[in-house]
Amino acid sequence: MYLKNAWYVAAWSNELDQELMTRTILEKPVLLYRKENGDPVAMGNLCPHRFAPLHMGKRIGDTVQCGYHGMVFGESGKCVLNPHHGGVISPAMKVHSYPVIERNSLIWVWTGDEDAADPALIPDFSCYSADGFETIGGVMDVQANYELITDNLLDLTHADFLHEGTLSSDAITISKLETIEAGGTVWANRWCPDGIAPPVWGQLMQSQMGFDLSQKIDHWLYMRWDAPAHLLLDVGISPLGKPREDGVWVYTGHHLTPVSPTRTLYFWSIVRNHGLNDPEVDAFWKGSIEFAFNGQDKPMIEAQQAAIGNTDVNDLRPVAIPADVAGGRARRALARQIANEVKGIKPESGASPLDELLKKSAGSYAPVLPVV
Amino acid sequence: MYLKNAWYVAAWSNELDQELMTRTILEKPVLLYRKENGDPVAMGNLCPHRFAPLHMGKRIGDTVQCGYHGMVFGESGKCVLNPHHGGVISPAMKVHSYPVIERNSLIWVWTGDEDAADPALIPDFSCYSADGFETIGGVMDVQANYELITDNLLDLTHADFLHEGTLSSDAITISKLETIEAGGTVWANRWCPDGIAPPVWGQLMQSQMGFDLSQKIDHWLYMRWDAPAHLLLDVGISPLGKPREDGVWVYTGHHLTPVSPTRTLYFWSIVRNHGLNDPEVDAFWKGSIEFAFNGQDKPMIEAQQAAIGNTDVNDLRPVAIPADVAGGRARRALARQIANEVKGIKPESGASPLDELLKKSAGSYAPVLPVV
Amino acid sequence: MYLKNAWYVAAWSNELDQELMTRTILEKPVLLYRKENGDPVAMGNLCPHRFAPLHMGKRIGDTVQCGYHGMVFGESGKCVLNPHHGGVISPAMKVHSYPVIERNSLIWVWTGDEDAADPALIPDFSCYSADGFETIGGVMDVQANYELITDNLLDLTHADFLHEGTLSSDAITISKLETIEAGGTVWANRWCPDGIAPPVWGQLMQSQMGFDLSQKIDHWLYMRWDAPAHLLLDVGISPLGKPREDGVWVYTGHHLTPVSPTRTLYFWSIVRNHGLNDPEVDAFWKGSIEFAFNGQDKPMIEAQQAAIGNTDVNDLRPVAIPADVAGGRARRALARQIANEVKGIKPESGASPLDELLKKSAGSYAPVLPVV
Repeated sequence: MYLKNAWYVAAWSNELDQELMTRTILEKPVLLYRKENGDPVAMGNLCPHRFAPLHMGKRIGDTVQCGYHGMVFGESGKCVLNPHHGGVISPAMKVHSYPVIERNSLIWVWTGDEDAADPALIPDFSCYSADGFETIGGVMDVQANYELITDNLLDLTHADFLHEGTLSSDAITISKLETIEAGGTVWANRWCPDGIAPPVWGQLMQSQMGFDLSQKIDHWLYMRWDAPAHLLLDVGISPLGKPREDGVWVYTGHHLTPVSPTRTLYFWSIVRNHGLNDPEVDAFWKGSIEFAFNGQDKPMIEAQQAAIGNTDVNDLRPVAIPADVAGGRARRALARQIANEVKGIKPESGASPLDELLKKSAGSYAPVLPVV
Repeated sequence: MYLKNAWYVAAWSNELDQELMTRTILEKPVLLYRKENGDPVAMGNLCPHRFAPLHMGKRIGDTVQCGYHGMVFGESGKCVLNPHHGGVISPAMKVHSYPVIERNSLIWVWTGDEDAADPALIPDFSCYSADGFETIGGVMDVQANYELITDNLLDLTHADFLHEGTLSSDAITISKLETIEAGGTVWANRWCPDGIAPPVWGQLMQSQMGFDLSQKIDHWLYMRWDAPAHLLLDVGISPLGKPREDGVWVYTGHHLTPVSPTRTLYFWSIVRNHGLNDPEVDAFWKGSIEFAFNGQDKPMIEAQQAAIGNTDVNDLRPVAIPADVAGGRARRALARQIANEVKGIKPESGASPLDELLKKSAGSYAPVLPVV
Repeated sequence: MYLKNAWYVAAWSNELDQELMTRTILEKPVLLYRKENGDPVAMGNLCPHRFAPLHMGKRIGDTVQCGYHGMVFGESGKCVLNPHHGGVISPAMKVHSYPVIERNSLIWVWTGDEDAADPALIPDFSCYSADGFETIGGVMDVQANYELITDNLLDLTHADFLHEGTLSSDAITISKLETIEAGGTVWANRWCPDGIAPPVWGQLMQSQMGFDLSQKIDHWLYMRWDAPAHLLLDVGISPLGKPREDGVWVYTGHHLTPVSPTRTLYFWSIVRNHGLNDPEVDAFWKGSIEFAFNGQDKPMIEAQQAAIGNTDVNDLRPVAIPADVAGGRARRALARQIANEVKGIKPESGASPLDELLKKSAGSYAPVLPVV
């Protein structure tokens, strides 16, 4: 059971060119390409004639030709040319056309009723293309259910154990989790003052601003979740009692696209306002992500999936701790939205706009929480 | 559901020597070997004692000894020696004996009732060993249902798209498909006159007879199908309005042996009457097959299979085009024969003999169709 | 259906150190490690919080910390530290604790009711650590049901065929199988006098005592089976009519731990009283095991498993021979014990102690059978 009336990330903008590509979203193969004017197109990838995958064919102008028997489909998904004797085109000769939007360096695909495809439902990730920020991103193929990854992201105390020695500190796990639900959005915020700098953060602040590692710092991790699985973390450190301007911080985005119940495309980003146009800082962040996400989170989450098999994790009666509150809320919010969709209730709109938050956080050192 | 009262190809003659080998046919492992006099033997591959595969044992004279506990089986499948204390042989100690015939360089195995195993039911592939012809052949392991391959072969318009630049022309897809059903046989014939030479054919005619590639040609593709999946294609080109003797042509055979619902052994052949004993022409044809069958048809058909999964393709409501008529007829003819088999109706005999056709085609340039 | 009230081998003693390791036993992942004093610990490997595998965490003193969110478990399986805000520990935060015993160089784990875990139910393998004997051992990962391996071991006539030229002779298969059932134990004994020396045995006796290979020998193979699948073979040769002291012999142990219905951890041993502290004799036995078990038995048993698939071998109506009697008895004895366990009947105790047998066999050349 997936939320269908929702936007899912199909690709980073820079992954998609005029070549045909395919990605499986909610168990359905989707064909992706760009038209000659650069606009993205998304449609079902299986030719209705004999179910040959269309990405094995070729793009001709703004259309795509099946590589098996040559039926040509327009961007609307309808067959526009039957090269065979007679040339008649059955009205049934068409594939599903996915509403698609390119926004903030991502290709967003709507998997539900075409009429309900409201671009305003895309959560605000304007920071990806905001002035004064620089974004790097990538995608990981994870052999696990996407909600196990959501759980991971909504309980960042795992930094102290899974990322011990890199992202861990002495102040995260003992901090209080502030969980806020607003509309369809769940926030999981941790304000972790007066601790030691997590090594990766300390190293960054040292190299960026000559920070003395023996000093205490304040650390914050504010995670925003929107259904089905789009998360944005505002995370950083500043010298004890100082505003964020005196420290280093990033946004990190996480977009989880279910391929199947046990496989997920995990699109990640790091959005920074420090070290702009500096390839060394790029390399620093890429290396940190590779080490932490690919080398530590992915194996752990895949091991969880292997352990629980095809059973829903909640049917196995996990023993909860307070740190699970935000993950639990997101799971319930998603289940509610899926149930509502079945009943025909309109999708919930997402978080309050990001720029409000950006304004609020300017110059503040206290936790910046959304208006509830 | 397979047609059981039928001959399937288990191997090319030159694949089988006195070593034990095994092939899985209709989901059953079959043991194959040659007796000392060279005659082929086919029997069930699992020892009835503990189900050890017999091909892991050894041949002793014309018998085979299980490699686990030493029971010895004769060519009839009956145990002929129990080396154990007492040495008693239970009448149940036997494996299924498959009727087997070596004909036209192929090992044919009958999978149904032994009494119904009529060698006359083997379709005519006498061209494989006809005077003045030379045959090369091979086998591919395809991860797809055999009927998807039959579909491929009965709609050769795919040459224009899947084999674009090698086997494609400007006259195949727009040609009319002539479909003929005679007895259990289906013919799918295309007469494609006045076109450009498909590059592979043009190159061949140029090298064999100095053909000028700027000239127009006539092209023919006459495919014969017999249940369960034995196909013979008479294909070639000749200069516009000239008889086939002035051009180049081959027979290509296709024998599809189901391993499982989603896996097929695909035995192919090229039978030519040009460039005899010329290793360069051998290499030309082997290269063309490798490029087209292994490099293009196989990936496309396997992608189709992966897309439809375990569902029957027809349950997915494919949108038909006129080019599907022959494939549809073959599917219905096979379904009818399988249904008849369940009712106990005798197997249908195959196509009219090939030599009639050969005589008719001599000196003709018009399409040579079988007598209905 | 497994026998749960039973001891299974989880590891050789020398495989287990203070590092965390995991083995799957009866389809359940088990965490294994040693405490600081060296005592082994066995507990469920999945953290009850989110089912992260505990072996991906770390040992801290005698406890283990989950590598995902830091819950700490004591050797009893109970959570002893919750590092999170609040630090409350739910009584449900615990994993199964497996009774574990280290005996005779093996780590034995009890998979059933803790109250029924009687160390006296471990079959006697005291020879592994007896004075005057030296033991080498290993473990193989076999893709087959453990009872197929039991069958293999209880019918050693397969030596004549599967191990032809190494362990085969002219006297095994024609010998009479003496099957004895005593309590929960099944013996399968073969006394094979007046034959040629199996090549491996002949080679050993030649190198150890200058034996002349042209001489006839007596050969014995006495296999003891205890549920669920612990086997001990007393096997050797002596010059014709001479006591075992004049020949060479070993005990070989076989402990089969089901991972799943189609996968087994196979712990094997060779226990010898000849060539003590001689690395060449070590190498001789390791090479023989590698050749015979890994190179011949394993492929054959895995091929059997592949042939029968998920069906129970007995549902396929194997055709029995007298050599199957012992295997059949062991299968029925195990089925009876599993049925009894369901009814709540106490586990059966195993074989008569090994030292009685050792005393009896001293100086004898006749088959040494247990008292019934």
